[in-house]
Amino acid sequence: MDGDGKHEFHYNKKNCILSLCPGASSTGATPSEEMNGTGNLMDFLDEPFPDVGTYEDFHTIDWLREKSRDTDRHRKITTKSKESYWELIKSLLDAWSGWVVMLLIGMLTGTLAGVIDLAVDWMTDLKEGVCLSAFYYSHEQCCWTSNETTFDDRDKCPQWQKWAELMTGHSEGAGAYVLNYFLYVLWALLFSFLAVSLVRVFAPYACGSGIPEIKTILSGFIIRGYLGKWTLLIKTVTLVLAVSSGLSLGKEGPLVHVACCCGNLFCSLFSKYSKNEGKRREVLSAAAAAGVSVAFGAPIGGVLFSLEEVSYYFPLKTLWRSFFAALVAAFTLRAINPFGNSRLVLFYVEYHTPWYMAELVPFILLGVFGGLWGALFIRGNIAWCRRRKTTLLGKYPVLEVIVITGITAVLAFPNPYTRRSTSELISELFNDCGALESSQLCDYVNNPNMSRPVDDIPDRPAGPGVYSALWQLALALIFKIVITIFTFGMKIPSGLFIPSMAVGAIAGRIVGIAVEQMAYHHHDWIIFKNWCRPGADCVTPGLYAMVGAAACLGGVTRMTVSLVVIMFELTGGLEYIVPLMAAAVTSKWVADAFGKEGIYESHIQLNGYPYLDVRDEFTHRTLATDVMRPRRSEPPLAVLTQDSTTVEDVETLIKDTDYNGFPVVVSRESERLIGFVQRRELTVAIKTARQKQDGVVSSSVVYFTEDNPQVAEACDPQPLKLRRILNLSPFTVTDHTPMETVVDIFRKLGLRQCLVTRSGRLLGIITKKDVLRHMAQMMNQDPESIMFN
Amino acid sequence: MDGDGKHEFHYNKKNCILSLCPGASSTGATPSEEMNGTGNLMDFLDEPFPDVGTYEDFHTIDWLREKSRDTDRHRKITTKSKESYWELIKSLLDAWSGWVVMLLIGMLTGTLAGVIDLAVDWMTDLKEGVCLSAFYYSHEQCCWTSNETTFDDRDKCPQWQKWAELMTGHSEGAGAYVLNYFLYVLWALLFSFLAVSLVRVFAPYACGSGIPEIKTILSGFIIRGYLGKWTLLIKTVTLVLAVSSGLSLGKEGPLVHVACCCGNLFCSLFSKYSKNEGKRREVLSAAAAAGVSVAFGAPIGGVLFSLEEVSYYFPLKTLWRSFFAALVAAFTLRAINPFGNSRLVLFYVEYHTPWYMAELVPFILLGVFGGLWGALFIRGNIAWCRRRKTTLLGKYPVLEVIVITGITAVLAFPNPYTRRSTSELISELFNDCGALESSQLCDYVNNPNMSRPVDDIPDRPAGPGVYSALWQLALALIFKIVITIFTFGMKIPSGLFIPSMAVGAIAGRIVGIAVEQMAYHHHDWIIFKNWCRPGADCVTPGLYAMVGAAACLGGVTRMTVSLVVIMFELTGGLEYIVPLMAAAVTSKWVADAFGKEGIYESHIQLNGYPYLDVRDEFTHRTLATDVMRPRRSEPPLAVLTQDSTTVEDVETLIKDTDYNGFPVVVSRESERLIGFVQRRELTVAIKTARQKQDGVVSSSVVYFTEDNPQVAEACDPQPLKLRRILNLSPFTVTDHTPMETVVDIFRKLGLRQCLVTRSGRLLGIITKKDVLRHMAQMMNQDPESIMFN
Repeated sequence: MDGDGKHEFHYNKKNCILSLCPGASSTGATPSEEMNGTGNLMDFLDEPFPDVGTYEDFHTIDWLREKSRDTDRHRKITTKSKESYWELIKSLLDAWSGWVVMLLIGMLTGTLAGVIDLAVDWMTDLKEGVCLSAFYYSHEQCCWTSNETTFDDRDKCPQWQKWAELMTGHSEGAGAYVLNYFLYVLWALLFSFLAVSLVRVFAPYACGSGIPEIKTILSGFIIRGYLGKWTLLIKTVTLVLAVSSGLSLGKEGPLVHVACCCGNLFCSLFSKYSKNEGKRREVLSAAAAAGVSVAFGAPIGGVLFSLEEVSYYFPLKTLWRSFFAALVAAFTLRAINPFGNSRLVLFYVEYHTPWYMAELVPFILLGVFGGLWGALFIRGNIAWCRRRKTTLLGKYPVLEVIVITGITAVLAFPNPYTRRSTSELISELFNDCGALESSQLCDYVNNPNMSRPVDDIPDRPAGPGVYSALWQLALALIFKIVITIFTFGMKIPSGLFIPSMAVGAIAGRIVGIAVEQMAYHHHDWIIFKNWCRPGADCVTPGLYAMVGAAACLGGVTRMTVSLVVIMFELTGGLEYIVPLMAAAVTSKWVADAFGKEGIYESHIQLNGYPYLDVRDEFTHRTLATDVMRPRRSEPPLAVLTQDSTTVEDVETLIKDTDYNGFPVVVSRESERLIGFVQRRELTVAIKTARQKQDGVVSSSVVYFTEDNPQVAEACDPQPLKLRRILNLSPFTVTDHTPMETVVDIFRKLGLRQCLVTRSGRLLGIITKKDVLRHMAQMMNQDPESIMFN
Repeated sequence: MDGDGKHEFHYNKKNCILSLCPGASSTGATPSEEMNGTGNLMDFLDEPFPDVGTYEDFHTIDWLREKSRDTDRHRKITTKSKESYWELIKSLLDAWSGWVVMLLIGMLTGTLAGVIDLAVDWMTDLKEGVCLSAFYYSHEQCCWTSNETTFDDRDKCPQWQKWAELMTGHSEGAGAYVLNYFLYVLWALLFSFLAVSLVRVFAPYACGSGIPEIKTILSGFIIRGYLGKWTLLIKTVTLVLAVSSGLSLGKEGPLVHVACCCGNLFCSLFSKYSKNEGKRREVLSAAAAAGVSVAFGAPIGGVLFSLEEVSYYFPLKTLWRSFFAALVAAFTLRAINPFGNSRLVLFYVEYHTPWYMAELVPFILLGVFGGLWGALFIRGNIAWCRRRKTTLLGKYPVLEVIVITGITAVLAFPNPYTRRSTSELISELFNDCGALESSQLCDYVNNPNMSRPVDDIPDRPAGPGVYSALWQLALALIFKIVITIFTFGMKIPSGLFIPSMAVGAIAGRIVGIAVEQMAYHHHDWIIFKNWCRPGADCVTPGLYAMVGAAACLGGVTRMTVSLVVIMFELTGGLEYIVPLMAAAVTSKWVADAFGKEGIYESHIQLNGYPYLDVRDEFTHRTLATDVMRPRRSEPPLAVLTQDSTTVEDVETLIKDTDYNGFPVVVSRESERLIGFVQRRELTVAIKTARQKQDGVVSSSVVYFTEDNPQVAEACDPQPLKLRRILNLSPFTVTDHTPMETVVDIFRKLGLRQCLVTRSGRLLGIITKKDVLRHMAQMMNQDPESIMFN
């Protein structure tokens, strides 16, 4: 009962692999075959020397040990650097390698993000038509390069032809509509089929958003191949396909995964990072920041996202490097300029009116809506994913994707707000209506006598376009809410930032227009009287959309600071931080009332990853003795003694048990702990000794003592001294230590296991898994007690 | 040799108090008298029940214990909340108290910052003249409210009269100049005399920037009264006086101290925070963020400053709350609107030209300059402060302040760039020259045919004003560099953000003008050819000033991310982040080459505070056994046994030693550890038992065992059971644990002490002080080994 060896392995095989994409085990192969297949097929390049990797797949790393290994390495290099100039240069290179890795990550992530943006643009438009002047132009590029485009009708130019127009020559009429409709659905099905097939065949790990798994990996878990080259390649390609297919999903989460794959890739260039799982995770934290940075064009928000949401161990050095990587990525993306507007940010907005105190009421209502949506989405999505895992549904992922894509495309085409890509939709909803805006949402009745400047337009009554837009938006809202629940978790890359923001932006815009029209038509109402004179520009519906988007995103992910900072970077001003904060806080509180966990934590729990959340507070009164194994009914702890175990005993112990390691005690009677020995090292040491060391036989005694063993008689077999593999500083706590403290120690020091003693006697062991299991137990038993923090 | 009781107390008395303001012990009283005097005089209100405070002054707190106490309290409230509605409401109030405290801190900090800004404005101008329409108007307000002010000459209006004009009626001429000069110096002397006297008499802790002490306090040290009400009041008042006196110091650091005092003040309203030193520190971290937020108008930068530079223990919950407090503070300040421009930020800038790759060369050179200045300043300032501590100099702090103020004022008046307040100077240096700018620095030769819009002015040749400004700036640079070294550390509130930024801004502006003129006159040089056509606006000298300021600030404080983010918030655009980062990184690297520590860490070390830096990496091979006490030559560890020590023995032990606590072992022979007992609790328990419990006499045996002691004979004295005060889960490590791991444990878990065992036998103890001493030893022995990280 000491160690988390095979047990954990099985546990993970069953719970994790099956569900790395929830409901994914669909090849008919057993999970372990699938996993090994993946490993052998593609990621053998990532791990060229399987013996050097010190952890097995699906095991937890020991942070303290990794850190001390790095210090050793560093010490060696520093000592050597005094020997010669060459070594000095090498040591300088080593010191700089962290920055080089960051630079490379930033550049590759930015480039990939740019390529993805361009490809998605093109392929999304491909569903509707093609550019005759160059087939690889998107609609916007096509008309932008055309000379015949006027400013009023930027979207229309003869070079861009819809499919029906190209095929039949008619651009209008029922026939053309049906043909366009049919081709739209067909392209969507083709894209999503390609995406799911690629994922299934080449890189099963490329599915989903990847953030729950990355959180788990960063907390110290090993999932081989999850950040491999193939995953990088396939995820990039399938992300483009999935987004272009028009499914209700976004590219933000997967971009974080892609960035982490880049990070892992560059880690392998430097032994400093490739050989140390702790240092590798520092790089991955920074890569995650770069991923968010390019997803939104918000470098500071990205760093805070990595700090708040993704990372586990985040030393200050990482903060600075993450910031560097995030900036390099953002600037690389800007150099590629995929949006064609020299802007870094995905949704650039500029509002011309301040907000008023009274508007906080609708903002807070939007926060409530966001919280409710978050809670609903998490419950619904988790229930659906659980069903997928347990029923036949999970056996046919390709069919599932096809069906959902079909439904999405069929329902989306008739409504102009769902037909276009979700980010375009959000962009339009965020926008303030200028005087020249031609969109339906800006169809206000203009006062012909108006002589104000372009960017200071007073509130106007809504025209018929706005009202029809409201109906369409309401339908789009319901559609998005329902379909997103079923989409997230399918076996294709899928992020949920964009769908969540879309839901919020639609709701926000509807509320915004409602408030605006109320304010226009009822200037005299007491609530408007003080701040909204007739003819003034009081209400900005776009701001409501933005607030709604923040609220919904907050409800789903429970981000707080990073969310507000990302939104701040989008608008570029402190002006609107108060509305955003009010909505984000309300949404978090409302959503928390229905369940403490965000979508990522929920998926981590659903998939049973061994993740020890830094934020959960453990407030129960249990003691280490209640959690440690062996329990009272179980057989005693499997231990070795320092000078009375034979090689054969050890081998039997290794064969009979599957623990990760064994405590070594002075003697079975005194049970005084002297150290801890790893199973892996014990096996290797005995095997080597049997092969190479004369006289070591089954009856040889294994010695862990410092002094040379006294061989009593000459005829006794040669003893085997193994002190060098003994860890002389195992972590211990007393049996009376509150579990609260134990949890804290596990979290902060990143332990794998901890031995429990009383007055110097070894009593038992607590592994990370025991801690997690205990926490889950306590949580279910008394869920209320963690409500108010 | 177990505990850090009196030893630490003495140690601190000698090292800290004497130097809380470096070179401050000047009353002639002994340090402890001075300290007690302070305590009795002013801060008795802060600690109404001296017995409730569980830590003595100048002791280190035990983070784990504080945390577990808070969990207990929380658990009690949660359990009670189920009993009645009243208790439920109370528990909700308790859960919300954190937010209430943040709101209050934000509002008070913002208000104080606003009041300080207004007062400084007024008093700085008072040195030169007075407003006739209302004496409490500053120069700007005076002319702003006057009708006779024209746009061209905003600074001149009849209501504002210089002293000479008011007294003699002549505003020009040598006599007027001398009179103004004289009064300028006189006011400066008066202000600084008032400041130093107030500090000396009422609140010695109000001196200095306060950041080193706050860092130490946040790391878990207790300095009673350092954040008290009197300190708050006196620091606010003297800060105004010190800044107005024209000394080369800023208000940013002291504002952080003021904000932390506010935090401490509001903590006392809620028992959740006032009775738990750990929770209190969470609030103080957030308060520090609010302080920086109002100092620069940069809330995000403030939070990151708190995270990067000041805080020790920064859980995610604190991040969110800090952000809230920082925002509230910033908005309160904006509501007060002390700068009269509705801007949040101290130096609002807007540049109209992008920067070019080639400009990175001067930016990096500015980074080098900033690094050199940082290294020079730290060395010079520390050397001077050490001299102040050890020589007669420290005995006359009032005289020192007077002399330095006199020198500053006499040298500052003739030069217009040093005469005005430093923040105005920085503001002017940051500014881009518009076409209408009338200042000397913008005296360019205008092309009369120019028909460009106002904010897109091409590079122009410099006029005579610019050249004379350059000379004056060069002199100001030298003056600032020298005087700042002697100013920082005097017995008045003094921050060094502003002086550092001023040095950098002057240097930057000079470089900027030089590059600009070179680019104008030598368009054809190969370095300018590619990006600077004739008639284009290529170079913005203001940007150089900003980059220089960032570089110098970075060199002194070694801030990185927070520095860049603060600068980003000042400019409000990502455009200039690359120059700023390039300069900040260069400056940090250059400065690090001369010494790893920033000014705050240097002062912490100079003053000998027990601060365990999170960033120092400990890379030596020593083991716990090398650090633990008792050492080989020393007497054995003072321990108690669980059932064979008498009350008298314990009392003798308490009397003879000054340790903070004692380990309890099974018996002196086996030395198996069972727990740890605090000196304080032991004393109280024995005293109470002697008074209230019958039969407890000197020969009573003290029992720490679980079972009821067996009283052998009826005539034996009544035993004293003390198990309830025994800490059954003391932290232990084995003697073979690498010190690297021990340091990590101390840092991350915030321990006070840690017991060292081998095979369950107690060998010794390591206290936080032992760790610090050992680290200092190792560092000095081999300073090179920590160079490359």
